Amino acid sequence: MEQLNKLIDHIVSRVNINLREPLVDVGPYVSDLIPRDSFALYYAFYSITATHPLKFHFRHSSVGGTYFLGKCEVDHSILYKSDIRGDELKRKGSVVKCNGQDIKLRDDEVISIRDSYLMKTLVHNNSHDPENLETFKIANTVSLHYANIHGTDVEGCFLEPFSSVDLSVCHDCAVGAFSYVQAGELSHRRIKPGRVWVKAPGLFEFKYRFPEEVLKKYIRMENYRPVGILMDFFENKKEDFVPIYSAVHPENIIEADGASVSPYAVIKGACSVDKNVLVAQRAYLEDSRLGPGANAQENCYIINSTYEGEDVTAHGGKVIHCNLGRKVFVGFNSFLNGKEDAKITIGSSSIVMPHTIIDAQEAINIPENCLVWGYITRQEDLELHSITLDEFASIKGQFQLGNMSFEGIGAKFVDGFRHRIDHILEENGAFYDGSEETMGHAQKTQDISFNILQPYPEGELKGLYPELAINPLEPSDL
Amino acid sequence: MEQLNKLIDHIVSRVNINLREPLVDVGPYVSDLIPRDSFALYYAFYSITATHPLKFHFRHSSVGGTYFLGKCEVDHSILYKSDIRGDELKRKGSVVKCNGQDIKLRDDEVISIRDSYLMKTLVHNNSHDPENLETFKIANTVSLHYANIHGTDVEGCFLEPFSSVDLSVCHDCAVGAFSYVQAGELSHRRIKPGRVWVKAPGLFEFKYRFPEEVLKKYIRMENYRPVGILMDFFENKKEDFVPIYSAVHPENIIEADGASVSPYAVIKGACSVDKNVLVAQRAYLEDSRLGPGANAQENCYIINSTYEGEDVTAHGGKVIHCNLGRKVFVGFNSFLNGKEDAKITIGSSSIVMPHTIIDAQEAINIPENCLVWGYITRQEDLELHSITLDEFASIKGQFQLGNMSFEGIGAKFVDGFRHRIDHILEENGAFYDGSEETMGHAQKTQDISFNILQPYPEGELKGLYPELAINPLEPSDL
Repeated sequence: MEQLNKLIDHIVSRVNINLREPLVDVGPYVSDLIPRDSFALYYAFYSITATHPLKFHFRHSSVGGTYFLGKCEVDHSILYKSDIRGDELKRKGSVVKCNGQDIKLRDDEVISIRDSYLMKTLVHNNSHDPENLETFKIANTVSLHYANIHGTDVEGCFLEPFSSVDLSVCHDCAVGAFSYVQAGELSHRRIKPGRVWVKAPGLFEFKYRFPEEVLKKYIRMENYRPVGILMDFFENKKEDFVPIYSAVHPENIIEADGASVSPYAVIKGACSVDKNVLVAQRAYLEDSRLGPGANAQENCYIINSTYEGEDVTAHGGKVIHCNLGRKVFVGFNSFLNGKEDAKITIGSSSIVMPHTIIDAQEAINIPENCLVWGYITRQEDLELHSITLDEFASIKGQFQLGNMSFEGIGAKFVDGFRHRIDHILEENGAFYDGSEETMGHAQKTQDISFNILQPYPEGELKGLYPELAINPLEPSDL
Repeated sequence: MEQLNKLIDHIVSRVNINLREPLVDVGPYVSDLIPRDSFALYYAFYSITATHPLKFHFRHSSVGGTYFLGKCEVDHSILYKSDIRGDELKRKGSVVKCNGQDIKLRDDEVISIRDSYLMKTLVHNNSHDPENLETFKIANTVSLHYANIHGTDVEGCFLEPFSSVDLSVCHDCAVGAFSYVQAGELSHRRIKPGRVWVKAPGLFEFKYRFPEEVLKKYIRMENYRPVGILMDFFENKKEDFVPIYSAVHPENIIEADGASVSPYAVIKGACSVDKNVLVAQRAYLEDSRLGPGANAQENCYIINSTYEGEDVTAHGGKVIHCNLGRKVFVGFNSFLNGKEDAKITIGSSSIVMPHTIIDAQEAINIPENCLVWGYITRQEDLELHSITLDEFASIKGQFQLGNMSFEGIGAKFVDGFRHRIDHILEENGAFYDGSEETMGHAQKTQDISFNILQPYPEGELKGLYPELAINPLEPSDL
């Protein structure tokens, strides 16, 4: 165990040096966060498929409970029950457009994590940093419970629980709990908790900040540990995952043409999926129905709900007692908490912003084609927390509604969002028609096997893993 | 799957070339022996402990259902549900006595398997070949169901089901079903089925041959496939192993001080183990009691039996309705088939030769301190199939009893055997008193974790594994 303790100290000092005063000392957040014995109890998963780019290498790391898909390098890192998805990594020879130029990749893109400490974090490719097209870097980031990292770089950052850094080049900064940042480079900066910030330089800037009292109820740090309704929600469901993570080959319970339901997802009660549905690993489905092409991403919870089809529940989205029309997007880490007697209905093509909380005290009905954000408990709250997408698209200049402010070209924001939703559906295989071009994750992950990796069980190295490399067979072998 | 088929063909031709005419064509024994789809369904296990020498590397191989412990290299091989135990491998710097000379090892010993096809075979270290002290070689051997390989080299051999090559340098030869050979180099030679042959050049030679009609009942080849009572016995127990091999962390059910019961052993009914007992993986215990320091090795079955203590059931031994006194040795692949109303009792310090069949038609009582071999169904059969060890030790020259013949110095044979039994008990930790010097496998394998390795699930490489390397952390990492 001695070496594990050294490694934790090492990571803390690396991150602290990068963050520098007065940002934050990550030590108290990290030390003793995970019971030291737990490191030796969990195991990691690395997937083998016929379609994903294979390469895995780590050394002097602890990767307990972590799940890897696609090319990965991990050095001197602790990844604890994190999901590292490398299934959209760019391939060697593919061409990327950067500022009007075509750049051809000289290598396959690789996720590289080094001196990092990721706790239940979701990391998703692919790199949007034109300077590092072949490397999805994380460097010496510390990221806590249920944070999301999509995009690349990040480096010496500290991400508090339920924060998201999206499509992001972040570098040295600290992001508060439940903050959503999609704003490029944030050099040596601290982002306060509960902030939703989307910025495209020269085009637009969207800002929302949760009222402090509200945020505290759902997620706050107490003695360096996260508490609140969101943490309780996850705590309560934890046990449901134990049986599937104890089996070498957990069984797929529900199936449909072109659909893929991960054997590492929890399926409870009466659930059904339609064709081309993707239910990712660590997703949770209970008494719910997913229409054609819908997808349920990692760490999302869909309970007592129905999806008409082509709906997206992004990483960490929680959808309870909701009825979703066609092509509804529920953003990262949103919490849509309908009740048996206070259901939430969302009309087709509406977009629920990342990090939105709808905690229904009465039935709530969101019309078609709307943008929704912030904190909503009653129907009347929608007045200050939603707008039709058509209205939003017509904004030019400054716009304010309640705690939300927008500046720039609304059409660019709306088009960008719609384009991204289409891209997500496409990548996930929602439009699969039997042809190879329309294949997505739902089709490509139907046949998957896992290497299950375990650490040293005792001794000085307890909780660490031996050096391990998995490589594809060379053409010369065949 | 295409590449898997190619690999099987490749192995067959490598072995055939080495065996050459007129020995045997291994093709029909191997092709379609394992349903091709099974290769993609099973997974292999490689152990991580704080005490075993770590190193694992394979490439372009299929190792389904196989279990590895300690240093291993596997290339272009198919190992199917085989047990490769490298837990007594010699370490770098240790000194080996060879013909009166002290040879210091310049490297850790490594098990190397190359172009081989091993089917449910048990491979156990360590190398006894003075020419290859650092390498436990297998080369392009084909070995079928429940064969045992202990020792080193082997190379282009063909081992039929339930055969054992013990402490052996074999090279190019074919060993018939249920033959036991401990005879050094057997160049370009065919050993007929059912032969038990122990030879120490210049010292002694022990020979026994099972009557053909008897052997056929228990094990014979029909259309290149093994059939008979021994195969039926294994077939009937197969299902009992499914639950434990489906769990990531199967649980140890019984425990005792200094004892180790593998979570990958089957424990049924009322079983108990005493201190310093070792129950290896893939052992099978049912309604039995093992006294202090007893051990149950891989593929052994102990059913409705009691062991007084320090008893050894070697790899593949089957012990049913038996009561064993202290320090009884039951050799490799022996079948002691007592019945509810025809129990077998074996007195202390007796040695049941490898490949002995006692299929009791009435109660059978073997006295203390005896050597037993061959085929026994009634008490009176002992007359031609046993002798006291003291009598045996007094033989000098030629001796014949029934189908058994011996030539040489009986005392050397008896001493060698006793010494080996003590060594086995010592290595397995039977004499553990809390001190480090007395530790053996039972103590060292109490804390063990496994990497669970799975093959490509689909596509051209279906059933093969990606290249995989597991290495210990370098001192420079720490």
